[in-house]
Amino acid sequence: MNDAEIVTQLSNHRRTIDNLDAALVRILAERFRATTQVGILKATYDLPAKDEGREALQVERLRRHAEEAEMDPDFAEKLLNFIIDEVVQRHKKIASDAKTAA
Amino acid sequence: MNDAEIVTQLSNHRRTIDNLDAALVRILAERFRATTQVGILKATYDLPAKDEGREALQVERLRRHAEEAEMDPDFAEKLLNFIIDEVVQRHKKIASDAKTAA
Repeated sequence: MNDAEIVTQLSNHRRTIDNLDAALVRILAERFRATTQVGILKATYDLPAKDEGREALQVERLRRHAEEAEMDPDFAEKLLNFIIDEVVQRHKKIASDAKTAA
Repeated sequence: MNDAEIVTQLSNHRRTIDNLDAALVRILAERFRATTQVGILKATYDLPAKDEGREALQVERLRRHAEEAEMDPDFAEKLLNFIIDEVVQRHKKIASDAKTAA
């Protein structure tokens, strides 16, 4: 390939990556909307912020999805944990804000 | 809400979260397919694994998407960096495998 062809190929792949990133953000935004509702429910009815049984199921399911999509299941699990850590922190904040307001 | 209603609401939100997670994994799998192609191009034509200018643009665009979707742009940026770190490691592996094979 000459330089122009390399640049064209690279920019084609990058357009794909940018479009997928936009989709990822939108889906994540919707996921946070759902977890916020869960956080409000947990705070209102005094349920624990973390649910180990639920998380184990999520990890198992996600690893299966990753394998089906020929993606590294370890990375999928690491990423889910990264997101769940953020969600748990937010749930704790929702709970403490609810206590302050009460 | 009584206990049955709480359980129903919680499981509804969780079904949404599980569906979105499945979508996230599929999109991420496709993203890795694209970044693998970029990694092969970079290894073949001896381009650097990291591209600071490109990353700065990606972060800026992603933060804008996050704001539009009413999601925390700082978290979107942290997540992108988490994914990019993984991609850079894979690009380095592709490059070193290519050198070993050559």
